[in-house]
Amino acid sequence: MLNIGIDLGGTNIAVGIVDEKGTILAQDSVPTKVGRPSQEIIRDMAVCARHTMEKNGIGMEQIKSVGVGIPGLADNKTGDVIYCVNLFWSQIPLKRELEALLKKPVYIDNDANVAALAEYMAGASKGTSSSVFLTLGTGVGSGIIINGKLWYGAHNVGGEIGHISLQMDGYHCNCGNDGCVDRYCSAGAITVMAQEEMKKTGNAELTALFEKNGMKISAREVFDLAKSGNSAALAVFERYTNCLSRTIDDIVAFLDPELVVLGGGVSKAGEFLVDAVRAKVPGLLLYKEMPFCDIKLAKLGSEAGIIGASFLQTVSES
Amino acid sequence: MLNIGIDLGGTNIAVGIVDEKGTILAQDSVPTKVGRPSQEIIRDMAVCARHTMEKNGIGMEQIKSVGVGIPGLADNKTGDVIYCVNLFWSQIPLKRELEALLKKPVYIDNDANVAALAEYMAGASKGTSSSVFLTLGTGVGSGIIINGKLWYGAHNVGGEIGHISLQMDGYHCNCGNDGCVDRYCSAGAITVMAQEEMKKTGNAELTALFEKNGMKISAREVFDLAKSGNSAALAVFERYTNCLSRTIDDIVAFLDPELVVLGGGVSKAGEFLVDAVRAKVPGLLLYKEMPFCDIKLAKLGSEAGIIGASFLQTVSES
Repeated sequence: MLNIGIDLGGTNIAVGIVDEKGTILAQDSVPTKVGRPSQEIIRDMAVCARHTMEKNGIGMEQIKSVGVGIPGLADNKTGDVIYCVNLFWSQIPLKRELEALLKKPVYIDNDANVAALAEYMAGASKGTSSSVFLTLGTGVGSGIIINGKLWYGAHNVGGEIGHISLQMDGYHCNCGNDGCVDRYCSAGAITVMAQEEMKKTGNAELTALFEKNGMKISAREVFDLAKSGNSAALAVFERYTNCLSRTIDDIVAFLDPELVVLGGGVSKAGEFLVDAVRAKVPGLLLYKEMPFCDIKLAKLGSEAGIIGASFLQTVSES
Repeated sequence: MLNIGIDLGGTNIAVGIVDEKGTILAQDSVPTKVGRPSQEIIRDMAVCARHTMEKNGIGMEQIKSVGVGIPGLADNKTGDVIYCVNLFWSQIPLKRELEALLKKPVYIDNDANVAALAEYMAGASKGTSSSVFLTLGTGVGSGIIINGKLWYGAHNVGGEIGHISLQMDGYHCNCGNDGCVDRYCSAGAITVMAQEEMKKTGNAELTALFEKNGMKISAREVFDLAKSGNSAALAVFERYTNCLSRTIDDIVAFLDPELVVLGGGVSKAGEFLVDAVRAKVPGLLLYKEMPFCDIKLAKLGSEAGIIGASFLQTVSES
């Protein structure tokens, strides 16, 4: 049997038909067009799913379930979206509406949980019992696996490591607090740190990069400049990896998982990033002579959203 | 059947004979006299246990097991003490040696885990499935219960919430990092904050309290002064409860337990402390409209060490 995995993002709705091993057999996407009524967006999910199946000769009788990862807070028991700030959604009965359209059982979850699940079922954390997945993207999301299951907490509000404190009086965060991990470990943090470094040092190459792009710069550009040996970009990389390493140390001190997996856009820096973090974390640990978690890059990249969503029924049954 | 619970501290070895409901039937203590060979300290545990039983007419045949809470890192599988910095212990086969002396199965664990277990089996967190216990004492210790079991992590190095970061560039911590929760939420933190407040404001009452005690002040004295309405002491109380509230918010954002339990010396401030924290935490939460954990005071006080240790066999079997 196959499952449909849907990754609902602020820009696109990505739909995939996925086998039970987590291999995507077919996929397509349509623009989300944020601002439309939720019913229209949900209808487009169904249309895109049916269309993808038809184009690839997959019949509805081959489909066991549908999973959807949403960029917000999901009640995975009722299947309601509690809210998605970026989509202006609040209390949307996503499961009920999508089941009415596709006539298959629908499961929903938060996108960071879904990506953590994908890595656990078919990626970097496969075979481990406890792991923490960090998405280092526009913000910092996380999903926690404990005893082989996604950890939802007692009220469905946990697994938000992006909002634990690194620096209580630090950068202001959209959540209302100051100094959250999100403000120091996201892609946006790299941009802010690069701006500060440019102002502080006046580094010519870094300034040129900012000016070339109308004073905008991406995390990737900063890290590419660091790889080339530019001192200001290396200082940003140093600061960023210090913050990320301290966050991983916090995860060890709190939960001590078997594995920490780094995903999201920033993790595309690959070994350059993970090598730096692996070198720094041991020096931060409370018990410096004891074993601690592996730190690995996510394996599934941007397809984790589709793959993880396709597994939501499987894990809800276990 | 009864169990022996032993609370090994830096000052005293407290021994109790405990029934299966967690009621202490008899107890006694002897000085630890730190610096002696571990064999002598372990022998004193056994002697004190036998003596307490004899004095209270309890025979060895009534004893099922012995549990010991240690102020350090325990390998609860082998029963070896990995290390106790305060006792200058490293790699001590505590289980093996104490079993040889008492001829009963011995179980050991970290003292914060033991106190968390006591509250879970017979105190504030009884009946919950997930909880975090914080001991606000000389340092900040913690014990985590997940799915009704003590959480040891994958390498036995977790449950150290005292060493997650609140303020990355803040007060230096003995662990080597800066700005750990320990430096902002322990009894010692209250003393440091009071010193800073005294220097900043020159507050007469606070200064007098310092001078009365040869420039030493306890957390309790600062909080008592705050209760009386002194502005400088209230400023310390405000700062301390801000830090503790942010730590609880971090626990919610990370793990989202059913309950957070506050124990240790600082928690003796009682409702004065917990009311302040309960008032502050909701404003810090990421999901402000969602339910979150209860925050309660520990129930068992200083006896939690004996009671929790007495339950170590029970939970190791489950």
